[in-house]
Amino acid sequence: MTGSVLASWKDGLAKQAVLDFVAAAVTPGSGFVELADRIAAFDNDGTLWVEQPMPPQLDFVFRKWQEEVRAEPSLAQQQPYKALIEQDRAFFEGVATQDPQVVATLEEGFARSWAGTTPEEFDAQVREWTKTVKQPKLGVPYVELVYRPMLELFDFLRANQFRVFVCSGGGRDFMRAFAEETWGIYKENVIGSAAAYTYADGRIVRSEAFLGGLDLGPGKPEHIFAQTGRLPLFAGGNADVDIEMLQSARFALLVNHDDEEREFAYAKGAETALAEAEKLGWTIVSMKNDWTTVFGKEAG
Amino acid sequence: MTGSVLASWKDGLAKQAVLDFVAAAVTPGSGFVELADRIAAFDNDGTLWVEQPMPPQLDFVFRKWQEEVRAEPSLAQQQPYKALIEQDRAFFEGVATQDPQVVATLEEGFARSWAGTTPEEFDAQVREWTKTVKQPKLGVPYVELVYRPMLELFDFLRANQFRVFVCSGGGRDFMRAFAEETWGIYKENVIGSAAAYTYADGRIVRSEAFLGGLDLGPGKPEHIFAQTGRLPLFAGGNADVDIEMLQSARFALLVNHDDEEREFAYAKGAETALAEAEKLGWTIVSMKNDWTTVFGKEAG
Repeated sequence: MTGSVLASWKDGLAKQAVLDFVAAAVTPGSGFVELADRIAAFDNDGTLWVEQPMPPQLDFVFRKWQEEVRAEPSLAQQQPYKALIEQDRAFFEGVATQDPQVVATLEEGFARSWAGTTPEEFDAQVREWTKTVKQPKLGVPYVELVYRPMLELFDFLRANQFRVFVCSGGGRDFMRAFAEETWGIYKENVIGSAAAYTYADGRIVRSEAFLGGLDLGPGKPEHIFAQTGRLPLFAGGNADVDIEMLQSARFALLVNHDDEEREFAYAKGAETALAEAEKLGWTIVSMKNDWTTVFGKEAG
Repeated sequence: MTGSVLASWKDGLAKQAVLDFVAAAVTPGSGFVELADRIAAFDNDGTLWVEQPMPPQLDFVFRKWQEEVRAEPSLAQQQPYKALIEQDRAFFEGVATQDPQVVATLEEGFARSWAGTTPEEFDAQVREWTKTVKQPKLGVPYVELVYRPMLELFDFLRANQFRVFVCSGGGRDFMRAFAEETWGIYKENVIGSAAAYTYADGRIVRSEAFLGGLDLGPGKPEHIFAQTGRLPLFAGGNADVDIEMLQSARFALLVNHDDEEREFAYAKGAETALAEAEKLGWTIVSMKNDWTTVFGKEAG
C-alpha cells in the first residue's frame, strides 16, 4: 500500500505517525474507527498554502479596498482603509489575536464591499484574482502554492474513506470559489468565516450580517461541529488559532514553517501551538525535513 | 436499470418525470449536470415521514416541557408551556407561518431546556424517544414511519452520484441523532434549524443562541446555500414552508397527502404549494396513486 502513498513525504516520524494512525483506524481492533466518524479537518493558510507575507485572501481584499479608496478618497480617513493605506500591520494582526474591535471593523469593511453581491459575481472576482495575482517572492499565482504533500495526504485519507474538510479563519465563499479544482474537495466540505445570504426573488444575495462567529480558535471546533455534527478525528493546522481544533481531534498534525529556502521560516503566531504540540504529543511536520517536494503537481 | 429502481413507485407521470430528469442529468447532452452540481435536498416532516397529528419533534419537545412543568408547576402560567398545557394548536401553528413572536418564545423554551447540554446527552434523549414513543394512530415508533418510496428515491439519486441532503425546519441536531441509521445519510448532510454550540475545555456544549434563522420558507435555500455553496438541483417537499426551496431547484417534487387509508389526507399548510406546483410544472406525487407501499423496509 506504500509506493505512491504520501510520495512527497520522507520516511520519518511524521510520515510514520500518519500511516500508523490511519492503518489502525481502518483495521478491526482497538484503534478502529467507524466510517461515519472518519472526518479530517485542515486549516488553510499556512497549512495548505503559503501565508507569507500575508494570508492570500488579505491580498484579494486589499485590492478591492484600494479600488474603493481610489473611487472615494475620504475612505482613507477611516478603518479598515486607513490601516491599509498606512500599512499598519499591527492592526491586521488583530485578526490572529481575535481583537473584537479589529474584527468588527473588518466585518463592516467586508459588508460595505460585498453586501448585495451574488455568489456568481463573488466567484468571478475570486477567479480573476487566482488567475492574475502572483505571490511576490515566489512569482506564481497563490493557487499554485498549495503544498503538494498535503494534497497527497488528502488523497491518502480519502483512499481510507475519510471525508476531508477544510476549516479556515478565512472566508468560506472565498475558498469555495477554488476548492473543487484546487483541492478536489466539494464546496460543502469547506468551512470558514461566512457572510449570511438572503433568498428573495429566486436569488441568493450576500447580506451585511455574518453567520456565527469567526472561524478561529474555539470557533474552529464550533464551526466543524455545526457543519458536520462531529468533532474531527484527524486535524491539521499550523498556528495558534488552530489550537482548539487540534485539541478536539484524536490525531493532530502541526506544520512547522522551517524551510527558509523553499518557502519561509517563521514561528510567529505559532509559538503556543508548537509548545502544545510538544506537550500533547501532536505530530510536528518539518517542511524542511519531512517533505521532499513542497510545491508542484508531481512528487519529487 | 429499472427492475429494483424506485420499486415502490407505480409507473406513472411522477415516476417517469424523476427517471427522465435523472437520466438527462447523467447523460452527455443538453440536460447533463456536472457531478459537483448534483445536489438533492428534501424536507423531512411530511416529505420523509408522517407529520400528523403533529411534527414528531414536537412530541419529543412537549414531553420534555411536560416534565419541566411537573417539576416546576408555575411554568404553566407562561409560554410556551401555557400553550402546551391548554393544547393551544393555534399557537404552535405560528411556527408554520413563521410568526416572530411564537418563534422567539419557542427558542427561549428550547434554550431553557437544552442550553448546557452536550451532543452526547442530547443524542441519548432523542434515541430514547425514537425507541419508546409511538405514533398514536399507527402504533409504531416514528422512525418506522419513514416513507419507503422516498428512501428508494435517495438510493436512486445516490446511484446516479447525487449527494442527498435533508433540509428541515425541524432541529438539525434532533435529525442528526437518527439520520445515519434511518436515512443512510451522514450527519453533515442534515440541514435544519440549529442551536449554536460553544467549545471550551475540550467539549462542545449547546448555548442559548440560535445559529442563523429558522430553516423554513426562504430560510431553506439560505441554509442549503450556507451548508453546500449551491442551490439544489433536485428538491422535494410537501408544504408551503418548502416553496422557496422548491423554487430554487431545477427539479421540484411535491408530496401530496391524499391517502386517508394508509396515512392521512390533508392539504392544510400546503394549499399554496399545491397551486404553485400546478403553475410551475412541479412533479406532484400522489401518495395514494403513485406509491404501492408507503411504509416498511420491503417494497410491496
